[in-house]
Amino acid sequence: MAPSNIAFIKYWGKRDEDLKIPLNGSISMNLSNLLTTTTVEFNPDFKKDLIIINDQEEGDEGSRVIKHLDRIRKLAKIKHKAKVISKNNFPTGTGLSSSASGFAALTLAASKAADLSLSEKELSILARQGSGSACRSIPDGFVEWLDGNTNETSYAVSIFPPDYWDIVDVVAVVSKDKKEISTTEGQKLAKSSPFFPARLSKIKDKIKLMKKHIQEKNFTLFGELVEQEALELHAIMLTSIPSLVYWLPGTLKVMHAVKRWRQEGLQVYFTVNTGQDIHLICQKKDAEKVVNKAKEIPDVTQTIINYPSNGAR
Amino acid sequence: MAPSNIAFIKYWGKRDEDLKIPLNGSISMNLSNLLTTTTVEFNPDFKKDLIIINDQEEGDEGSRVIKHLDRIRKLAKIKHKAKVISKNNFPTGTGLSSSASGFAALTLAASKAADLSLSEKELSILARQGSGSACRSIPDGFVEWLDGNTNETSYAVSIFPPDYWDIVDVVAVVSKDKKEISTTEGQKLAKSSPFFPARLSKIKDKIKLMKKHIQEKNFTLFGELVEQEALELHAIMLTSIPSLVYWLPGTLKVMHAVKRWRQEGLQVYFTVNTGQDIHLICQKKDAEKVVNKAKEIPDVTQTIINYPSNGAR
Repeated sequence: MAPSNIAFIKYWGKRDEDLKIPLNGSISMNLSNLLTTTTVEFNPDFKKDLIIINDQEEGDEGSRVIKHLDRIRKLAKIKHKAKVISKNNFPTGTGLSSSASGFAALTLAASKAADLSLSEKELSILARQGSGSACRSIPDGFVEWLDGNTNETSYAVSIFPPDYWDIVDVVAVVSKDKKEISTTEGQKLAKSSPFFPARLSKIKDKIKLMKKHIQEKNFTLFGELVEQEALELHAIMLTSIPSLVYWLPGTLKVMHAVKRWRQEGLQVYFTVNTGQDIHLICQKKDAEKVVNKAKEIPDVTQTIINYPSNGAR
Repeated sequence: MAPSNIAFIKYWGKRDEDLKIPLNGSISMNLSNLLTTTTVEFNPDFKKDLIIINDQEEGDEGSRVIKHLDRIRKLAKIKHKAKVISKNNFPTGTGLSSSASGFAALTLAASKAADLSLSEKELSILARQGSGSACRSIPDGFVEWLDGNTNETSYAVSIFPPDYWDIVDVVAVVSKDKKEISTTEGQKLAKSSPFFPARLSKIKDKIKLMKKHIQEKNFTLFGELVEQEALELHAIMLTSIPSLVYWLPGTLKVMHAVKRWRQEGLQVYFTVNTGQDIHLICQKKDAEKVVNKAKEIPDVTQTIINYPSNGAR
């Protein structure tokens, strides 16, 4: 089982397409209630890999999973085919990073099934090769992905445990439709944005600042930076050629609402990944209020309360 | 009477706040059906300036008008107070550049009423001081605002007459609510975007390219660049500190629809100013189809067909 994670500093653009080494480091928090549960069985009697995700046998998505199984088989020096059964307890392909929780859970379950005994760092490196941000779903709590520039130096570490800070991520689901362009395809366009070099040139300082705000538990400065970073990511995507417009009308409705709620004195900030669903970051004392307000917006079909959580287990 | 204009290369950020000298040049087209009609009377018997805009006596907006009247009184060496009656035939403060048509019409009407005989260039310079983009509503048809760096060198010129190219701007009104932050206030934040220097460094080449596409009447390349530029402007605004989110859910709905229509073979591109209303740029042969499709979107409350038009008259 592994959690999805929400990035406060985003991962966008790859240094190495195959190894999924990113062009910049990132900061995230594991989410207690966005979970993928995965079981893996390797068996010499299986004729082929069978991949069942959310009760459906997979074709296309399956091939990425098989590639990942191949990595683990190579490490374990086995050739057995596998049966993989995986389930998300939340919508898939709407911006809630199901591939992060999915590939983290797969990495842990498959490596155990193959009798590999891997360290947290090794698991993180392996998960990264399946889906970049999956490496952040391996360690506990608040996490930094050290960008690195080789396979061995690009992995995630815990910077604070889950109980370090009482903040909450209220996910507002605005549509269960799968996004039109996958994150993997979108990522390839990062460098086509005229603003991408400016983003990269400032990102190390931004990571330092984000860690400082978390260290000092300064919720206002933290929240402002989280929101700025989300808008910066989307500015990069909007100016890609061709442009990537992941927001839906409901996303924008919630964004405007958050700004209004803040004017009314409620401390809440938004962040959005590649997709339409929107994350409302607040302090625990305000979580119920935020949930109730979010539910009043007609476009919000579901809310999911998340606390900082452990990584894959 | 003067038309509003739609910018294909946008004006965002000022070199001189008072004189409204821009940080970059821009390209626009005057719009046949977004019009401000203004009458001005100077009379020694008037005790104070009376400003009536859209049938309402103005307070705040009025002071910008009075400042502009003062410029004209100074030029004409008169001290008479004025009665100004101005009317827009389209929504005000929703991203349709009513201050462009408004200050162009005021400049022409007030200078005539004050018996000034000004050249097109002088009118454009004067209109610019009232509201930057108003300088583009003085000359005819397709227009370039030469950025300049002094009061005398920053003005707009016609680059092609209205009948040069059969393109159409279908305005889709998605809300008549006035935007929360005026363009004037928003402009002040331009430099706070981390991406603004990258925009400025490339804008001269972009202007050249835009003129080339218009010159060659290459509608596809022209439309793609128009849309890229609109998204770039909004990327700058989204990454300003504080962030400026001018789009409304309806804006985004139309943007997604335009992308879908293009996939279905209809050649149409969007652009958006500081506001929620959205401009659909197409060729004359497709205008009716675009209007009908836009009307099918529930958020679109009004459509206005515009052809390239003459400037202030």
